[in-house]
Amino acid sequence: MRLSKYFLPVSKEAPADAAIASHKLMLRTGMVRQNGAGIYTWLPMGLKVLTRIEQIVREEMNRAGAVEMLMPTLQQADLWRESGRYDDYGKEMLRITDRHDREMLFGPTNEELITDVFRAYVKSYKQLPLNLYHQQWKFRDEVRPRFGVMRGREFLMKDAYSFDLTEEDARVSYRKMFCAYLNAFDRMGLTAIPMRADTGPIGGDMSHEFIILADTGESAVFCDKALLDLPPPGLDLDFDSDLNAEVEKRTQYYAATEEMHDEAAFAAIPAESRVSARGIEVGHIFNFGTKYSLPMNAVVQTADGQMVPVQMGSYGIGVSRLVGGIIEACHDENGIVWPESVAPWHVGLINMRVGDAACDAACDDAYKALTDAGMDVLYDDTDERAGGKFARMELIGLPWQIVIGPRGIENGVVEVKHRKTGEKTEMPFAEAIKKVAPK
Amino acid sequence: MRLSKYFLPVSKEAPADAAIASHKLMLRTGMVRQNGAGIYTWLPMGLKVLTRIEQIVREEMNRAGAVEMLMPTLQQADLWRESGRYDDYGKEMLRITDRHDREMLFGPTNEELITDVFRAYVKSYKQLPLNLYHQQWKFRDEVRPRFGVMRGREFLMKDAYSFDLTEEDARVSYRKMFCAYLNAFDRMGLTAIPMRADTGPIGGDMSHEFIILADTGESAVFCDKALLDLPPPGLDLDFDSDLNAEVEKRTQYYAATEEMHDEAAFAAIPAESRVSARGIEVGHIFNFGTKYSLPMNAVVQTADGQMVPVQMGSYGIGVSRLVGGIIEACHDENGIVWPESVAPWHVGLINMRVGDAACDAACDDAYKALTDAGMDVLYDDTDERAGGKFARMELIGLPWQIVIGPRGIENGVVEVKHRKTGEKTEMPFAEAIKKVAPK
Repeated sequence: MRLSKYFLPVSKEAPADAAIASHKLMLRTGMVRQNGAGIYTWLPMGLKVLTRIEQIVREEMNRAGAVEMLMPTLQQADLWRESGRYDDYGKEMLRITDRHDREMLFGPTNEELITDVFRAYVKSYKQLPLNLYHQQWKFRDEVRPRFGVMRGREFLMKDAYSFDLTEEDARVSYRKMFCAYLNAFDRMGLTAIPMRADTGPIGGDMSHEFIILADTGESAVFCDKALLDLPPPGLDLDFDSDLNAEVEKRTQYYAATEEMHDEAAFAAIPAESRVSARGIEVGHIFNFGTKYSLPMNAVVQTADGQMVPVQMGSYGIGVSRLVGGIIEACHDENGIVWPESVAPWHVGLINMRVGDAACDAACDDAYKALTDAGMDVLYDDTDERAGGKFARMELIGLPWQIVIGPRGIENGVVEVKHRKTGEKTEMPFAEAIKKVAPK
Repeated sequence: MRLSKYFLPVSKEAPADAAIASHKLMLRTGMVRQNGAGIYTWLPMGLKVLTRIEQIVREEMNRAGAVEMLMPTLQQADLWRESGRYDDYGKEMLRITDRHDREMLFGPTNEELITDVFRAYVKSYKQLPLNLYHQQWKFRDEVRPRFGVMRGREFLMKDAYSFDLTEEDARVSYRKMFCAYLNAFDRMGLTAIPMRADTGPIGGDMSHEFIILADTGESAVFCDKALLDLPPPGLDLDFDSDLNAEVEKRTQYYAATEEMHDEAAFAAIPAESRVSARGIEVGHIFNFGTKYSLPMNAVVQTADGQMVPVQMGSYGIGVSRLVGGIIEACHDENGIVWPESVAPWHVGLINMRVGDAACDAACDDAYKALTDAGMDVLYDDTDERAGGKFARMELIGLPWQIVIGPRGIENGVVEVKHRKTGEKTEMPFAEAIKKVAPK
């Protein structure tokens, strides 16, 4: 992408009303613009990152056998009356009345709607197990939206729903999601720690939050240091195998959020292994059995002809919140430092003297060569001064920078900079393209 | 995708309440499920098609130089008061009040919001031209939603907005979209005819609807037959060149919707060239100058230091509606006949005797070979009887079918069927994979 044809409204000043690094940086880099309390427009660079996260989540859900679909944003109030949650949900639910005075709502979550879809089509144990997911905008009317996309009102969530015949089958489905989550977060460059969690308004008897550590995290978390060093299950995991060991490898260690914290159990961990920190919730999984299938009559026939309510679980990932979460985990004093997997572009190419024929030609060739090699490139072909170009490229935090200027061209070299380490090296372009290629 | 692990709830009966072919077929093939008046869940196969259309639209918008972003579904009422449309829009606008009694609305279109984004960042003619687009769910509270996704209330629209310094520049932007639309619809297997249109509530002095012909179309349309045979501008079109000739090649011929129809002008066309038919609107483009920039004070500085309101246009494509529109144009008595570019899968692979070792092995090998060759395959590995499998595969309308059974295995052949022509041929699998490969 040529920057001169793009829309990247970077600003020099830090906005006064942003309290945390990710919010400041998302505003300064022109990733989002606020349109109302907790409601954001995703400007082009912001959308690029959001889409990359969405795609990683999609790939890991599909790998675990879940099937993608898409539910609407608006739902009928009557469906929520069936589960009893319409009155329970409180003011966070945005209630809407249409022109015919029908009561609707902007979905804050989708247990009721997916149960309604399920009961319309699935009648037999032979159609199980089933795991359906979508990535759709939700609305929760938070009383005090804050921290930018970290606690917005309109937010993008991936929510998956599993359906099984028996409690044991439901645990198998739960473990698949548990492992898929670890892989997905790892691919985004994050270490997410599963912690026993309160089930809250979703309900159920088994629940884990996936937490990444960050000083600006919304809640205190406590865990065993061993959890920080465990590798993810890996993309070659056989999801049809017994995943119990993979789960227990983690659940054997202490890890809990504030609400579930057990001071005595934590004190029993050797002092040097105790981690007490702040955390950001990026995922939450629930096994809630028949909490919705029973009142909503979502039943399936068993092999011996009985009708039983289906066992369910739900599995959320805060997709838009992750954009903020990743920045909290990955930034320095000069700006964002994107992990390669979610970076809006892989390489930033800086033309040091736009209008100089040799410089323009070398940059155009480099842009074409990098693009042809399959890399996503942001080519700064604007006529701003060098200092501004460097600062902007640092701020938006692409993994690699290639700088081409008249002096380098004379010497047959370009400058390659690695954003994360800050390492700068001069080398011929033919070497540079190999150095920056994704490994 | 193995059908046994997928969710494709095909139904044998035609639903009683669906009036047109696309609605019937989308319900029968389990592409969508209605969740309320004009509100649909996109089941997995439906979402696959929707996503393919979205991707074609994205590629053609990007090719024409537009930049993708994403605005939220909910907007502030105050923004619509600035343009004066909050009171004008009527009951089709879904008005919402949040917990703090702030007035909001579910966006039916985005002229106000994009103008607000623009004025926040763009101050100089040097930042123009600019064309920003998004693909986002909209809501229009139709009094009588009908025809499935063709006239839903919650629907997916691509809307682009162009910003230019002068009226002539704005016409250049308009022509780019005009040509991009012709290419996009052509890639979907559709012949879309641009017709002079009323500008309606969007406003402006120049507007074209893009109409595909279908017996079930919502309005009468009239045009010169020559328009049906014109090839699209082509994907190698240089969008920086003068596109006037490309546009006039079409606008020289008579073409108008009912509201704009001029009986005398139509009568002047030779009788054999007069086409009077029904049409479905799949796109609508507008050039409305300063209708929004003036009241909302979206001004830019010119080269000689003056502040002038920016010239704007907007460009819509009914992305979810197109799923229905394509089916209206592409079906027969046995079901849907997808154009290759939007088909949910390219090939349907039918295993005629699941459980038979030789049959299973041959199918597994074929599935792997087709997938490795980059084709998207739906592998019917269910244990239903052959008749049901054939009927279902016809109904969902994938471009190609490959049928593998015990008799064929003995003779070293598979059966290849082309859905559109109905042509069936037996040949070795090595030939079949070449025959079905996208050309």
